[in-house]
Amino acid sequence: MSTVALKELSRSKCFAGHVIKYSHPSRLLGCDMKFSMFLPESKPLEKREQKLPVLYFLSGLTCTEDNFMQKAGAQRKAAQEGIILVAPDTSPRGLGIEGEDDSWDLGTGAGFYVDATTEKWKQYKMYSYITEELPGIINQSFPVDTTRVSIAGHSMGGHGALVIGLKNPDKYRSISAFSPIANPTDCPWGVKAFSAYLGPDKDAWKAYDASELIANYSGPSKKILVDQGKADQFLEEQLKVERLTKAKNDSGKNVLDLSLRLHDGYDHSYYFISTFIEEHLEFHAKQLKA
Amino acid sequence: MSTVALKELSRSKCFAGHVIKYSHPSRLLGCDMKFSMFLPESKPLEKREQKLPVLYFLSGLTCTEDNFMQKAGAQRKAAQEGIILVAPDTSPRGLGIEGEDDSWDLGTGAGFYVDATTEKWKQYKMYSYITEELPGIINQSFPVDTTRVSIAGHSMGGHGALVIGLKNPDKYRSISAFSPIANPTDCPWGVKAFSAYLGPDKDAWKAYDASELIANYSGPSKKILVDQGKADQFLEEQLKVERLTKAKNDSGKNVLDLSLRLHDGYDHSYYFISTFIEEHLEFHAKQLKA
Repeated sequence: MSTVALKELSRSKCFAGHVIKYSHPSRLLGCDMKFSMFLPESKPLEKREQKLPVLYFLSGLTCTEDNFMQKAGAQRKAAQEGIILVAPDTSPRGLGIEGEDDSWDLGTGAGFYVDATTEKWKQYKMYSYITEELPGIINQSFPVDTTRVSIAGHSMGGHGALVIGLKNPDKYRSISAFSPIANPTDCPWGVKAFSAYLGPDKDAWKAYDASELIANYSGPSKKILVDQGKADQFLEEQLKVERLTKAKNDSGKNVLDLSLRLHDGYDHSYYFISTFIEEHLEFHAKQLKA
Repeated sequence: MSTVALKELSRSKCFAGHVIKYSHPSRLLGCDMKFSMFLPESKPLEKREQKLPVLYFLSGLTCTEDNFMQKAGAQRKAAQEGIILVAPDTSPRGLGIEGEDDSWDLGTGAGFYVDATTEKWKQYKMYSYITEELPGIINQSFPVDTTRVSIAGHSMGGHGALVIGLKNPDKYRSISAFSPIANPTDCPWGVKAFSAYLGPDKDAWKAYDASELIANYSGPSKKILVDQGKADQFLEEQLKVERLTKAKNDSGKNVLDLSLRLHDGYDHSYYFISTFIEEHLEFHAKQLKA
């Protein structure tokens, strides 16, 4: 196995562990990529705990690897539970694709966690980056228990977490999302992104739609936690989280244990995430340590 | 009492309370000023708790009213303790003073919590803004127990909290600081700012120097908590926190209960603050509820 060229960009001690930001050349995406991670304090004497479980957190539109680490307040509980957090960037950057920086909801900062198939965006392979290339790097470089991995995300990243978790139920023990884009084939953000990245064939879009994946799920039993603020300005037009429950009910199957919680008064911001992130970490910890 | 023209800029529910950002015209500073606050959930049935204690948190160089609220992770404990948090901006803005935006450590974002006396900077009255005008607005507009007020801060704001608390021991029940500029009359940041704001007479600077104020303190007993990371890149040249202990020891008095804690490996960032902010809130809560 070849060595990964990880470059440490910053390191700050936090809750006795460290928040560390890295960059690395991505062979898959054709550019340098950054991610931020929280590595809890290592306890070398307790061999049992030497390999730690890991939670990937996928961020939303316009975000980078920083937002979650700086604003969610996740480190306190992650340190307590001994869980590594990994926050990837949200798209390739600097590829020189025409118009890649023109919109906040397409191109840079808006990779939508799909593998693009259109000629123009063919380098946008964020699905494979998150599920293959990045875990390969993480597993090679850090003390990760590769059998104990879960995934979470917010908004576009909530969509990403649901899609990636549902498509890879053997890789991810549990899935959670804040304010996810639940039915991207039927909302303006999703239609815009999928048209660009996947082309006009709407059947191809369904492979990246959480509601479609839930409706047709045939994998092992899986726990999913979704939190949604009822004062979220994007709820009605873009997120449509109730479609997740509908898809599950329509499927007539109970193999997915979906808990969708609606919260009065909360909006789309990190203040909402920070309020419930510790419950998400407890939810994942239970599955990761089972 | 005239009504204050508070303009609500944003409001997000957080830990059952709200983070709210306001702007208001400052008569004292001659510009609009912003502040961000956390207002815990009101419990109208428990009359005893209707008026809440308040903690002012003063931020550091280059910061605005946002940094502390977004990055410190203080709301969880503040909600538990029922403490209002107020995060002011760090200087007047847009006054049109020549060069006010040229340096990150002077002018905009760098008010240093003094009342400037030089002709050029005479509108920079952040000391009076924080101790008089802003509390007047807060007390008039929110359910604040005006007898239960404490102050804290980081870096330049740690200096501000120490100076303001020590000069007004009857107004502030307790004082805490992260990585404060402890002896600004003898460090590059302080000398630059005090020269500009207070002029060449170094005797006038001492009124805004925490180490000087501790050395000459003659007020009532007061608890002070200071946390400092030992890997802080500014510790040696700018912060010099050990001067606080020295000043107290040299004074030969014990009326100040100063706890200075040095932490291995921690730097100057909000990751350090987030690690210990809950202990600061517990420290203040004890004094605020005594």
